[in-house]
Amino acid sequence: MAEPPTTGPEVRLDLGRPERIGVEEAILCAGKSDAQLVAILDELAARAASALLTRLDAAVLDRLPEHHRARIDHDAVSRTAYFDRTPRPDGLPSVAVVAAGSSDMPQVGEVVRTLTYADVATETVVDVGVAGLWRLLEHVERLREFPVVVVVAGMDGALPSVLGGLVPGAIVCLPTSTGYGVARDGETALHAALASCAPGLTVVNIDNGYGAACAALRIIRAVQRAGVPGTPDGRPAR
Amino acid sequence: MAEPPTTGPEVRLDLGRPERIGVEEAILCAGKSDAQLVAILDELAARAASALLTRLDAAVLDRLPEHHRARIDHDAVSRTAYFDRTPRPDGLPSVAVVAAGSSDMPQVGEVVRTLTYADVATETVVDVGVAGLWRLLEHVERLREFPVVVVVAGMDGALPSVLGGLVPGAIVCLPTSTGYGVARDGETALHAALASCAPGLTVVNIDNGYGAACAALRIIRAVQRAGVPGTPDGRPAR
Amino acid sequence: MAEPPTTGPEVRLDLGRPERIGVEEAILCAGKSDAQLVAILDELAARAASALLTRLDAAVLDRLPEHHRARIDHDAVSRTAYFDRTPRPDGLPSVAVVAAGSSDMPQVGEVVRTLTYADVATETVVDVGVAGLWRLLEHVERLREFPVVVVVAGMDGALPSVLGGLVPGAIVCLPTSTGYGVARDGETALHAALASCAPGLTVVNIDNGYGAACAALRIIRAVQRAGVPGTPDGRPAR
Amino acid sequence: MAEPPTTGPEVRLDLGRPERIGVEEAILCAGKSDAQLVAILDELAARAASALLTRLDAAVLDRLPEHHRARIDHDAVSRTAYFDRTPRPDGLPSVAVVAAGSSDMPQVGEVVRTLTYADVATETVVDVGVAGLWRLLEHVERLREFPVVVVVAGMDGALPSVLGGLVPGAIVCLPTSTGYGVARDGETALHAALASCAPGLTVVNIDNGYGAACAALRIIRAVQRAGVPGTPDGRPAR
Amino acid sequence: MAEPPTTGPEVRLDLGRPERIGVEEAILCAGKSDAQLVAILDELAARAASALLTRLDAAVLDRLPEHHRARIDHDAVSRTAYFDRTPRPDGLPSVAVVAAGSSDMPQVGEVVRTLTYADVATETVVDVGVAGLWRLLEHVERLREFPVVVVVAGMDGALPSVLGGLVPGAIVCLPTSTGYGVARDGETALHAALASCAPGLTVVNIDNGYGAACAALRIIRAVQRAGVPGTPDGRPAR
Amino acid sequence: MAEPPTTGPEVRLDLGRPERIGVEEAILCAGKSDAQLVAILDELAARAASALLTRLDAAVLDRLPEHHRARIDHDAVSRTAYFDRTPRPDGLPSVAVVAAGSSDMPQVGEVVRTLTYADVATETVVDVGVAGLWRLLEHVERLREFPVVVVVAGMDGALPSVLGGLVPGAIVCLPTSTGYGVARDGETALHAALASCAPGLTVVNIDNGYGAACAALRIIRAVQRAGVPGTPDGRPAR
Amino acid sequence: MAEPPTTGPEVRLDLGRPERIGVEEAILCAGKSDAQLVAILDELAARAASALLTRLDAAVLDRLPEHHRARIDHDAVSRTAYFDRTPRPDGLPSVAVVAAGSSDMPQVGEVVRTLTYADVATETVVDVGVAGLWRLLEHVERLREFPVVVVVAGMDGALPSVLGGLVPGAIVCLPTSTGYGVARDGETALHAALASCAPGLTVVNIDNGYGAACAALRIIRAVQRAGVPGTPDGRPAR
Amino acid sequence: MAEPPTTGPEVRLDLGRPERIGVEEAILCAGKSDAQLVAILDELAARAASALLTRLDAAVLDRLPEHHRARIDHDAVSRTAYFDRTPRPDGLPSVAVVAAGSSDMPQVGEVVRTLTYADVATETVVDVGVAGLWRLLEHVERLREFPVVVVVAGMDGALPSVLGGLVPGAIVCLPTSTGYGVARDGETALHAALASCAPGLTVVNIDNGYGAACAALRIIRAVQRAGVPGTPDGRPAR
Repeated sequence: MAEPPTTGPEVRLDLGRPERIGVEEAILCAGKSDAQLVAILDELAARAASALLTRLDAAVLDRLPEHHRARIDHDAVSRTAYFDRTPRPDGLPSVAVVAAGSSDMPQVGEVVRTLTYADVATETVVDVGVAGLWRLLEHVERLREFPVVVVVAGMDGALPSVLGGLVPGAIVCLPTSTGYGVARDGETALHAALASCAPGLTVVNIDNGYGAACAALRIIRAVQRAGVPGTPDGRPAR
Repeated sequence: MAEPPTTGPEVRLDLGRPERIGVEEAILCAGKSDAQLVAILDELAARAASALLTRLDAAVLDRLPEHHRARIDHDAVSRTAYFDRTPRPDGLPSVAVVAAGSSDMPQVGEVVRTLTYADVATETVVDVGVAGLWRLLEHVERLREFPVVVVVAGMDGALPSVLGGLVPGAIVCLPTSTGYGVARDGETALHAALASCAPGLTVVNIDNGYGAACAALRIIRAVQRAGVPGTPDGRPAR
Repeated sequence: MAEPPTTGPEVRLDLGRPERIGVEEAILCAGKSDAQLVAILDELAARAASALLTRLDAAVLDRLPEHHRARIDHDAVSRTAYFDRTPRPDGLPSVAVVAAGSSDMPQVGEVVRTLTYADVATETVVDVGVAGLWRLLEHVERLREFPVVVVVAGMDGALPSVLGGLVPGAIVCLPTSTGYGVARDGETALHAALASCAPGLTVVNIDNGYGAACAALRIIRAVQRAGVPGTPDGRPAR
Repeated sequence: MAEPPTTGPEVRLDLGRPERIGVEEAILCAGKSDAQLVAILDELAARAASALLTRLDAAVLDRLPEHHRARIDHDAVSRTAYFDRTPRPDGLPSVAVVAAGSSDMPQVGEVVRTLTYADVATETVVDVGVAGLWRLLEHVERLREFPVVVVVAGMDGALPSVLGGLVPGAIVCLPTSTGYGVARDGETALHAALASCAPGLTVVNIDNGYGAACAALRIIRAVQRAGVPGTPDGRPAR
Repeated sequence: MAEPPTTGPEVRLDLGRPERIGVEEAILCAGKSDAQLVAILDELAARAASALLTRLDAAVLDRLPEHHRARIDHDAVSRTAYFDRTPRPDGLPSVAVVAAGSSDMPQVGEVVRTLTYADVATETVVDVGVAGLWRLLEHVERLREFPVVVVVAGMDGALPSVLGGLVPGAIVCLPTSTGYGVARDGETALHAALASCAPGLTVVNIDNGYGAACAALRIIRAVQRAGVPGTPDGRPAR
Repeated sequence: MAEPPTTGPEVRLDLGRPERIGVEEAILCAGKSDAQLVAILDELAARAASALLTRLDAAVLDRLPEHHRARIDHDAVSRTAYFDRTPRPDGLPSVAVVAAGSSDMPQVGEVVRTLTYADVATETVVDVGVAGLWRLLEHVERLREFPVVVVVAGMDGALPSVLGGLVPGAIVCLPTSTGYGVARDGETALHAALASCAPGLTVVNIDNGYGAACAALRIIRAVQRAGVPGTPDGRPAR
Repeated sequence: MAEPPTTGPEVRLDLGRPERIGVEEAILCAGKSDAQLVAILDELAARAASALLTRLDAAVLDRLPEHHRARIDHDAVSRTAYFDRTPRPDGLPSVAVVAAGSSDMPQVGEVVRTLTYADVATETVVDVGVAGLWRLLEHVERLREFPVVVVVAGMDGALPSVLGGLVPGAIVCLPTSTGYGVARDGETALHAALASCAPGLTVVNIDNGYGAACAALRIIRAVQRAGVPGTPDGRPAR
Repeated sequence: MAEPPTTGPEVRLDLGRPERIGVEEAILCAGKSDAQLVAILDELAARAASALLTRLDAAVLDRLPEHHRARIDHDAVSRTAYFDRTPRPDGLPSVAVVAAGSSDMPQVGEVVRTLTYADVATETVVDVGVAGLWRLLEHVERLREFPVVVVVAGMDGALPSVLGGLVPGAIVCLPTSTGYGVARDGETALHAALASCAPGLTVVNIDNGYGAACAALRIIRAVQRAGVPGTPDGRPAR
C-alpha cells in the first residue's frame, strides 16, 4: 500500500542555460513558498552557484535563514537580489534605460540590476514622459548612440512611439502597470507599444523588467560576437 | 379583432434641440433603412428644414429619390451630406483639426464638415504622427493660438499626449479605428487618450467625428458667449 | 569597476508647465514610495514652490516628516492636498460639478479641490441620479448658465446623457468606479458616456477627477482669454 | 460494414412546450440551412401546426418552396414570420414597447410581432431617447398604467434607468446592437441596463426581441391567472 | 474670498420613490464612508422613516453609534439590515427563491430579506444544482405554482436554463460571483442566463440580490393589482 | 546577387504522426490558398497517402482540379472530405455524440466524420437542449453505456453540466459558435463547460469538431489497448 | 405573522453521485462560511461518510472543532483534506501528472491528492517547462506508456502542445494562474491549451486540479471497465 | 465667405526617416483610398523615390494606373510590392525566419520581402510547429548561428517558447491571426509569446510582418555598426 502523497518543494535548476542561450536562469520568487525558496538556495549553495533572484519582497527576505541572507545583496525598490555574486560591469554603458515617470522605478531597477548582474553597464534616463517633451529631446542625441534602448512606460505608453521615431538602435519596450482606470494593469501601455506608428519596436510582457533585460542581453551578445578584433573577451569597445 | 402589425419607418425629429443645447440634430444614416431615410427627408422637406446627414454611403445616396438627391451636397470620404443648406463659415478658424495619418481622413472630414455646417471655420493639419516628430513641432506655435484643438489618431494614439503637453487650448481627442492587431477597432487609441499623462485631455467615442465637432462647438459657443462686445452675433473676433 | 546600482528616488519636476499649457503639474502620490514623496516635497520646499498633491492617503500623510505635514492642507475624502498654498477663488462659480450619487463624493472632491487650487470657483450638485429624475430637473435652469459642467457618475452612467440633452455648456464626463458586477471598475459608466446619444459630451478616464478639473480649466481659460474687456486679470465677470 | 455518414437536416420540434411553460417554441431561422428550414416547415405542415419564425431574412424566404411561402406572413423589418396562423389579439394593450431610436425598429418589431402571435395586444412608443427628454416625459402617465413595459435601447442604454425611476410596472430591458465604437455589438447598452441605478429592472440578451416578448408573456400570464373573475379565458379586462 | 472646500457627507434620500414605482429606496452601504452612513441614519431617524440597508458588513455595523445599532436587525450572511422596522409578510409565499449551491446563500439571503422587508412571503429551495438533477426535479411541481421564481446560480449558470424549460412563471435570474477561473466574478453565469435556450428568462446584475427582489416585487405588485376582488389591500389570496 | 524572393506554397506533411500519437494529421483547409491545397493533394497523391480534409468549403472544392476532386468524398454540412479513402468503421458504436440543437449539425458532422475516418463507429443524438429536458432524459440510460460522450452545445452551454451529472463515461465538451449577443462566437458556451458544476468534464476549442474527435480517439485507443484478449486488432468488443 | 428570516447553513450532500457517475462529491471549502463547513462535517460524521475537501486553507482548518480536525488529513500546499479516510492506491500508476514549473505545485497536489483519494496511483514529473526542453524529452518514453497524462502549466502554456505531439494517451490540460502581466489569472495558458496545434488535447478550468483529476478518473474507469479478465475489481493490471 | 470643404487625398511622405532611424518609411496601403494611393505614387515618381508598399491587395493593384503598375514588383501572398526598386541582398543570410505552419506564409512573406527590400538576406524555415517537434529540432544547430531569429506563429503560439530555450540570438516573435475559436485574431499567440517562460523574447503586433522585419533590421544595423573592420559598407562578413 502506498503512502498518501504530500506535496513538497522539489525544485530543479536549469544550470546549463547560459551555454544554450547566453542567459542565466533567474529565480522568480513570487508564487513560490518559503520552503521552495530555501530549497533552491540550499541547492545553489551546495553547487557553489550564484543566482539572480527576482520579485523578492523584503518581507520574504526577512524570513529566510540568516546564512542565506548573508550572501544576498537585495534592492528593495526593484525587488531583485544577487545571491553570492558581486557583478563587475566594465566598459562604457551599452544599454540605455529610459523611463516615462518616477513611478516606473521598480521596473527600471529590475532591468538595470539584471543587466548589471550580467556585467553589462547601463545608463538611466528617468522622468521624461512626453507631456514634457523638451525633457526627452535633451537626451536624444546621446540616446542615438546606443545599440539598444529599453523604454519603460505605463499609462498611455506614448514614450516608445516618440523615441522610436528618433533613435536608430534596437528598442525594447517595457510596459508597466502604472496608472488607473483604463490604464490599470498596464494593458493600454502594452497595446500602445505593440500598435506603435514607429517602425521596428519590440515589446515584452507588462512589468517584465527581467525579460526586457534578457532581450537587451541577447542583442548585446550578438553585437559583441560581431565585435572589434583585439577585444579578447568579445565585448564591444565602443 | 386587431390587424397583425407590420413595422414601418416612424421617425420623429427633435427640431427644438438647437435652442436647448445649441447643437442641431444630425441624421445618423447608418443602421436606418432606405424607407426610414426617405421618410426623414420627406419630413424635413415638408417643414422646410435643413439637416446634416452623417454616415451616408454613396451607394445609399444613389438609391434615394432624385428630388431629394438634388438638394444634397455629399462628400464621399467623410460620408457626410448637407440637406438643403449651404454653410457660410466666416471669420478666422477657431478650431484646429490635427490628424496623425492620412488614413484618418474620413474622421477628419466628419469633424470639419460638421463644424462647417454650423458655420464654424476650421484649420486642418494632417499626417503629423509622432514617429516623425519634427512635422508636428513645425505647427506647435500656430496650434497654441486655438481655443479648441481636435486631435484625430488611431493605432497607438500617441499624438494626443504629445500635443497635450504643448498647447493650452481645450483638447478633444477623436480616436479612430485605423490599424490592425491590438489596434483593431480603435480601442488602443481610445484608452491611450483616456490614460494620457498630459493633463486635461477629453475624449469622444471611436470614429465619432460628429461628436468631436459637437464638443468643439459647445466650447466655441461658450467662448462666443463671453466674447468681445461689439460683435453683434456673439462670434469671437480673434 | 562600477558599483552595483541601487535604485533611488530621482524625481524631476516640470515647473514650466503652467506657461506651456496653463495647467500646473500635480503630484500623483499613488504608486510613489514614501522616499520619493519626501524627495519631491524637499525639492518643492527648496524652490519655494507650491503644489497640488493627488491620491494622498491619510496613512501616507501621517508618515511624512512633521515639517512637511505642517505645510499641507489635506482632505481625506478626496485624498487631495495643497502644499504651501491657500487658494483664493473669487468671482462667481464658472464650473458646475454634478454627481449621481453620494458614493461619488471622493471624485467630486478631487474635481472641486483641483479647480479651487487653480482659483476657479465651483458649484456642486450631488445625489441627482436619474432614477429620481425630478431631483435633477430642479437644477436644470441653473445648470444651463454654466460654460462648463462636469458630470460625475458610476454604475450605469445615465446621468451624462440626460444632462447632455438639457444644457448647452461644455460637458466633461467623469465616470467613477462606483458599483459592482458588470459596473465594476467603472467601465460601464465610461462606455455609456462615450456612446451617449446626447451630442458633444467629452469624457476623461475613470476616477480621474484631476483630469476632469484640468479639462474644465482649459475651457475656462479659453473663455477667459475671449472675455469681457475691463477685467484686468482676464477672468470672466459673468 | 457501415456507410460513411453524411450529415442531414434532422430537426425535432418541442410541440409540448406551451403546456409546460405557456410559451410556444419559435423557429430561429438564423444558422439553419435551407434544407433544415424546409424540413421544419414540412413537419409543421404534416402536423397541421402553426409556428412563429424569427430571424428569417427576405432572401431566405424567397428561396423557400412556393407552397410554404403561401402560408407565411412575413415582416421584413423585424424578420419575423407567422406560419399558417393569423393572430387575434383582443382587449386593451397590456404590454408597452418603448424604444430610444428609430434604428431600434427591427428589435421593436420582433417584440411586437411575437406578442401579437401570442394574441397579446401591445402599444408602441418610439424615438424617445433621453437626449430629448421631454418626448419621453409626455408618455410617462400613460406608461405607468401598464403591468409590463419593454424598453428597447442601444448605444448608451440610458433609457431604461430613466424609465425605471418613473413607472411601477415590471420592466424588461432589451439592449440592441445599435451604435459603433464602444457601443458596438450592444455590450454597453446591456451593461448599463444591468448596472442601472433604478431598482428592479430585468434584462434579456442583446437584440433578443423574441426573448423580451416571452418574458413579458410569462408576466402577463401570471397576471391573467390572478385576474378578474368573469373573464372566461383568463385574460385581464383592464 | 471663498473657503477652500472640504468634501463632506451630503446625502439626500428619495423618500417619494414607493409612490412613484412601488419600491422603497434601499441604502447601499458598500462604498459609503462611516460618516455618510451615520448622516443617513440620522436623517432617517429625524424623519421617523424606516429603511432597508444592503451590503452592510458586520465590521461596519459595529462602528455605528449604539443608538442606531439598537434599531437595526442585521443578518450577517446576507449583509442586510432593517432599520426601525419589523416586517410582517403574511399570506402564502408568492415568490420562490431557488439556488444552485450553498455558496450562493449570501445572495439568496439578500433576495429573501428584501422581499420580506416589503412584506412579501417567500419559499426557498437551495442546493439543487443541475449536476444532481434529481434534487431539482423533486421540486418542479411545487415551483410551477409560483407567479415568480428567482433563480440564483454562479459558476456555469446552468440552473436557469433547466428551470426555464419546466415552469411557467416569470423567471428572474440572479447570477452570482461564486466560482473561480473562467467563472470568476460571475460573468459566465451572467452570460449563460442571458444566452439561455429557455425562452423568456430575465436577468439582473451579478450578486444583485436587492435588484432581483425588486424585479420580483414589480411583478407581484402587477399581479396584485389584477388580483381577486374582495382582497381589500390588493394582495393575492392564492 | 540573390533573386527578390516570392512566397510560394511549401507544405510539409507530418506522415509519421499516427505512430507517435495514434492520430493521423488532418489538412485544415481554412486559411490556405488554392495553390497550397493543390500542392498538398499532389504530395499526398505522389505518396499514395490518404487524408482527412477539414473546413473545406464547397466553393473551394469546386476550384480544385478534376483529378483530385474525383478522389474526394465531401460532406457540405460538416465541410469535411476524405481524400482517397473509404472508411470502414465496424463493431458497435463506442462514442456518443450528443447535440443541443439542430444549428450545431456542422460541428456534429465534423466529429462524426473524423471518427468515422478513423474507423470508429458513433451514435448521434441531436436536438436535446435542456429547455426541453425530457427529450434528453429519454436517452440517459443508453448514454450511460458509452466510454466516451462528446457533448456539442452553443448559446448557454447548459447541456454538458446536466449530462455530466448523469453519465459515468469520459465527457468531451465541444462548445459551438451558435447564438448571438453575449453568446456570439461561442465564448459563453466555452466558459460554461469549463466552469461546470459537474465534475470531470473536459473541453476543446470552440467549433473544434476535429479536436473533439481526436480527444475521443485518444481515449478509445487507451480503452482498446486495455481491451479484451482475443480481439486481434485491439478494438473493444463491448 | 411569519418570523423575519435569517439565512443559515443548509447544506445538502449528493451522496448518490458515485453510483451515477463514478465520482464522489467533494466539498469545495472556498466560499463557504465556517458554519456551513461545520454543518457539512457534522452531516458526514452522522452518516459515517468520508469525504474529500478541496480549497481548505490552513487558517480555516484551525478554526474547525477539534473533534473534526482529528479526523482530517490536511495538505497545506494543495489545500486538500481527507475526512475520515485513508486512501489505498495500489497497482502501478495509471495517471502521469506533468508540470511546467515548481510554482504549479499547489495544482499538481490537488490532482494527485484527488486521484489518491480515489485509490488511483499517480506518477509526478515537475519542472519540465519547454524553455529547458531536454528535461522534458528525458521523460517522453516513460510518459508514452500512460493511458492518461495530466499536463499542468501556467504562463504561456506551451507544455501541452509539445507533449501532445509526443505521447498517445489521453491528455487533460490543467492551466494554472501562475504568472503576471498578460499571463495573469491563467487565461493565456487556458487559451493556448484550447488553441493547441497538437490534436486531441482536452482542457479543464484554470486551477481546477480537482476537475482534472475527475476527468482522468472518468477515463481510467472506462479503461478499467474494458480491462483484463480475471481482475475481479475491474482495475487494470498493467 | 469660405467654400464648404471637401476632404481630399493630402499625403505627406517622411523621406528623411532612414537617416533618423535607419528604416525607410513604407506605405501601408490598407485603409487608404485608391485616390490616396495614386497621389502617393505620383509624389514618389516626382521625387524619383522608390518605396516598399505593404498590404496591397491584388484587386487594388489592378485598379492603379498602368504607368505605376509597370514599376511595381508585387507578391500576391505577402501583399507586398516594390515600387521602382530591385533589391540586391548580398552576403550570407543574417536573419532566420521560422514559421509554425504553412498558413503563416503571408506573414512570413511580409518579413522576408521587407528585409530583402533593405538588402538583407534571409533564410526561411516553415512548417515546424511544435506538434511535430522533431521537424524543428533538425534545424536548431543551424538556427543557433543567426544573430536574429524571427519566429512566426499563430494559434497557441508555442513555437517561440521552445525556440527561445534553444537558440542564443535575438528573437523577434510575430504572432499571426491564424486559427479560430479562442485563437481568433491572434490574441492567444500574442499573449503566449509575451508570457513565455523562455527569457528575452520580444514581440511585435499581430500580423505585423513589416514591424518584425524593421525590428530585425534595427538589430542587424547595430551588429553591422560594431562589425569587422575592412568591410567598407558596414555589413557583417560573418
